Amino acid sequence: MTITSPSPSMSYTPGLKMAHEINEQPQVLAGLLETGRQQVAALAETIRKASPRFVLLAARGTSDHAALYAKYLIEISLGLPVGLASPSTLTSYGATPQLDGVLWLAVSQSGGSPDLVESTAAARRFGALTVAVTNSPSSPLAGAAGHHLDIQAGPETAVAATKSYTAQLLALWMLVDAWRGGNGANAAALPDWAGTVLADGSVEHVAAQYRFADRIITTGRGYSYPTAREGALKLMETSYLPAQAFSGADLLHGPFAMIDSQHPVIAVVPEGIGGTAMRPVLDRLADRGAHVCVVGDPAAAAPGGLVVPLPAGIPEELSPIVQILPLQRLALRLSVDRGNDPDAPRGLLKVTETW
Amino acid sequence: MTITSPSPSMSYTPGLKMAHEINEQPQVLAGLLETGRQQVAALAETIRKASPRFVLLAARGTSDHAALYAKYLIEISLGLPVGLASPSTLTSYGATPQLDGVLWLAVSQSGGSPDLVESTAAARRFGALTVAVTNSPSSPLAGAAGHHLDIQAGPETAVAATKSYTAQLLALWMLVDAWRGGNGANAAALPDWAGTVLADGSVEHVAAQYRFADRIITTGRGYSYPTAREGALKLMETSYLPAQAFSGADLLHGPFAMIDSQHPVIAVVPEGIGGTAMRPVLDRLADRGAHVCVVGDPAAAAPGGLVVPLPAGIPEELSPIVQILPLQRLALRLSVDRGNDPDAPRGLLKVTETW
Repeated sequence: MTITSPSPSMSYTPGLKMAHEINEQPQVLAGLLETGRQQVAALAETIRKASPRFVLLAARGTSDHAALYAKYLIEISLGLPVGLASPSTLTSYGATPQLDGVLWLAVSQSGGSPDLVESTAAARRFGALTVAVTNSPSSPLAGAAGHHLDIQAGPETAVAATKSYTAQLLALWMLVDAWRGGNGANAAALPDWAGTVLADGSVEHVAAQYRFADRIITTGRGYSYPTAREGALKLMETSYLPAQAFSGADLLHGPFAMIDSQHPVIAVVPEGIGGTAMRPVLDRLADRGAHVCVVGDPAAAAPGGLVVPLPAGIPEELSPIVQILPLQRLALRLSVDRGNDPDAPRGLLKVTETW
Repeated sequence: MTITSPSPSMSYTPGLKMAHEINEQPQVLAGLLETGRQQVAALAETIRKASPRFVLLAARGTSDHAALYAKYLIEISLGLPVGLASPSTLTSYGATPQLDGVLWLAVSQSGGSPDLVESTAAARRFGALTVAVTNSPSSPLAGAAGHHLDIQAGPETAVAATKSYTAQLLALWMLVDAWRGGNGANAAALPDWAGTVLADGSVEHVAAQYRFADRIITTGRGYSYPTAREGALKLMETSYLPAQAFSGADLLHGPFAMIDSQHPVIAVVPEGIGGTAMRPVLDRLADRGAHVCVVGDPAAAAPGGLVVPLPAGIPEELSPIVQILPLQRLALRLSVDRGNDPDAPRGLLKVTETW
């Protein structure tokens, strides 16, 4: 009896789709920077004319972290108060809010989840200027909203969202930048930064050292807090690791009791204000003997800790688009090393429908 | 040589303070209902006159869960959009938002954290109507805000907040109820409900069965989502368990990959809309073979699962004040059983100062 190996074309490599989509990101960002400018400029003009007094963001899962990024960006650079909507108040509880003068931004890769579609339609009825930010112009969400911002990430087939997340971040940045009168030039180097980070091997050391960790805490402040959240979600959905994300400030409250030398902490520390605000948190972590991996500024790393350095000189408000790349790679690598398939995590479908 | 035991008066029992403060809650709630009415009515009148177009809530740690409760309450019963403030945008990043017509509610047990004091002072300068909700009328936060709502919980000495949390919830409910023209009567039975729940022994079975769990997921929707968050925080800070809270909708996204039969899930399922919205989540959990403990409606429990029943007939918007009690007791019991001291968790102080 002859045992034949499956032909290469028939072989299945766990994580191949996710790896491919992670590596596509420099091109996706470059494409959006080039071809997204016009739609962004037109939408920004519409928003400026409406002059919203307040912004509500609606999203779930990975897209919720893009929404959180937009919250910081709008609050800091436009001085407008922002809230994250709780879709269930409009859908399940039937709240009837006064939303005139409100900008409602619904963020969703697929644009398919019924609760987002329904709450966006309700927000529009209640007077909000509604914008759907999706990767799917023909989706129900794009149809329900008054306006659509296409993130142009191309088809995403791995269940774990990667390129659609960075494309959401960049689309939201471009929109806010145009809204405040910018020309988008600050982001021109993003594809290069992303390429540099994807070519760097430091994350392999992190994957090796955290291979047997039974839980991981991630933390960041300000613009980098959404990165900590999204990094934890990638680890949860691909490696089934209980990864917990806290803002640096919230971590010092009750959750700090969990910190010890047995469980690693990944700290996202950019250059700039959010990085400076993390320094007291890093000091407290060192006092407790925590093993810390710094993603970002090498100067923030503790002796004996790990570092995934990011290129110097990235403006802090753009850094989340680069910071998440090594965390996506870490999730992919840990998942495969631990015998899982990040392209098809157990219990999940690509489009999660919730009501 | 004679070995003498320490005299009883010198003995130290881990968790005694926390147990005492948990058991005080019926009296604390009764006291606040009786003596808090006047200050609440006066403050509600001030808010009604200001007629805010939008509400921002600022808080950290346990108080952040009381703020999240208030978000649901205000959105659903007053139809006003609500946002949870990110204090760092005002303090670290120096945002200068337009806050005229905004009600800023800062919630803090101690009223002592510098970032809350500073962001509240900034919100007041930027035109917001500012209210501090604290257990400490002489605190810096109460001084920084234009108005103060005293939650009257009495001194809390265990590091893990318990009675100050339920007093925050009730104070916020009384404020919103007065604001919408209610007379507070719906809450009259709260002290009795709390007493009934504290006398019930079901939580002991849960503590026994989850004694060796290495992680716990908590979940709830709408009004009960803050309970899931606060329950997870109690477990983290007293038992050092990696407890993760998700809204029922978000759980079905990426985090659902973590669900298996090896790790318990605590589902908060009230009577009412939020409980109904949890049913599809409970079905999915059953499909994955998860071991589920239902806190709330016994009808929602799965065969082979656990139930901590809550009294029937509690209005859903008041149920969080009762739901958290068994979760506080579970955290206390697991902490002591696992050899820890919930009155003095490692690495924590009672007042967490963050900037």
